[in-house]
Amino acid sequence: MGDVDNRRGGRAHNRRDQILRVALETFAERGYRGTSLALVAERIGLTQQGVLHYFPTKQALLVEVLKLRDAEDYQRFDGGSDEPHLDGIRQLMEFNATRPGVVQSFTVLSAESVTEAHPARDFFVQRYRTARGHHVDGLREELGERIAGRLSPEQAAALLVAVMDGLQLQWLLDPEQVDLTGLVDSFVTMLRDSNVPAAADA
Amino acid sequence: MGDVDNRRGGRAHNRRDQILRVALETFAERGYRGTSLALVAERIGLTQQGVLHYFPTKQALLVEVLKLRDAEDYQRFDGGSDEPHLDGIRQLMEFNATRPGVVQSFTVLSAESVTEAHPARDFFVQRYRTARGHHVDGLREELGERIAGRLSPEQAAALLVAVMDGLQLQWLLDPEQVDLTGLVDSFVTMLRDSNVPAAADA
Repeated sequence: MGDVDNRRGGRAHNRRDQILRVALETFAERGYRGTSLALVAERIGLTQQGVLHYFPTKQALLVEVLKLRDAEDYQRFDGGSDEPHLDGIRQLMEFNATRPGVVQSFTVLSAESVTEAHPARDFFVQRYRTARGHHVDGLREELGERIAGRLSPEQAAALLVAVMDGLQLQWLLDPEQVDLTGLVDSFVTMLRDSNVPAAADA
Repeated sequence: MGDVDNRRGGRAHNRRDQILRVALETFAERGYRGTSLALVAERIGLTQQGVLHYFPTKQALLVEVLKLRDAEDYQRFDGGSDEPHLDGIRQLMEFNATRPGVVQSFTVLSAESVTEAHPARDFFVQRYRTARGHHVDGLREELGERIAGRLSPEQAAALLVAVMDGLQLQWLLDPEQVDLTGLVDSFVTMLRDSNVPAAADA
């Protein structure tokens, strides 16, 4: 971080990256409506004009912040790995348990996005469709067409996303009482349990 | 609603009630930080001073709004009924599917409450502890000590709360694609399935 790279492109890239990281923290703390570009600028020691140079509106900044985080996670947990889908879920939850700030930002902003005319609403509608579709594929491949004896991959995918979101909320509020990774694990085990293996459907 | 009752107590009660209902809508639309007492007052046609007469701070108003909704739901779905616990869950979700505004307010405010120094944080920490404890009791009574072959009532209760919260978020964003009651039902069936009945634990 910082402007150690003095070539123009490198400096601009570092500055843009710095704005995105500080913006993520600020949105996480204060929500979209409680955050101003002026506050983000102040925290970096830039003028508001300096931030506007990279992101023309607060809305554009928010959407870029959200896309960056997703791209990083995707690379980390889905980069062409061959391991079972549900093992990747466990690893993602273990990683999330070490970064409450990032989890907080997604929890606050995804919930805030359900309100009328929120600038990230379309982003989150699309993000949840993509996430469910991604888990449908992974669950079908690992567990076949009938999961835990009765669920379709589509139902199991929506429940899996809900379990992760809902447990993260409980854990953020009460980390001593809510064992995020242990509870996700118990749900994963439930999905795998008493399951007809994929081979039997072929 | 309205000031048809001219006795002093009745009028004050109606006015207080009216403020709470408009405040709930406004918090749901704009979150806690995006709502001002002046805006709530304006929507009712009161002065801000008029609202302050009933609720000394915005924070006090928020907490009273949240308590009122919980008390109403508790009365509706738990008022000493003898039916199985999970049937009550289904009915609550069916009812919630008819009132997206209320579901939205809890989704936005519970998520927002995870941020530092949020005035409803203690309320939600306590609310989730109470909810989990309540479901532990109900699940133990209906399904015994081992649920779906492997979960403790404590684990199943945290997962049940997570499933409801998480599905409500997905449903608020995408009601055409997410069948709130059907998906909660599929999870309830999963909990009941292949279960050792309570009697066998005695």
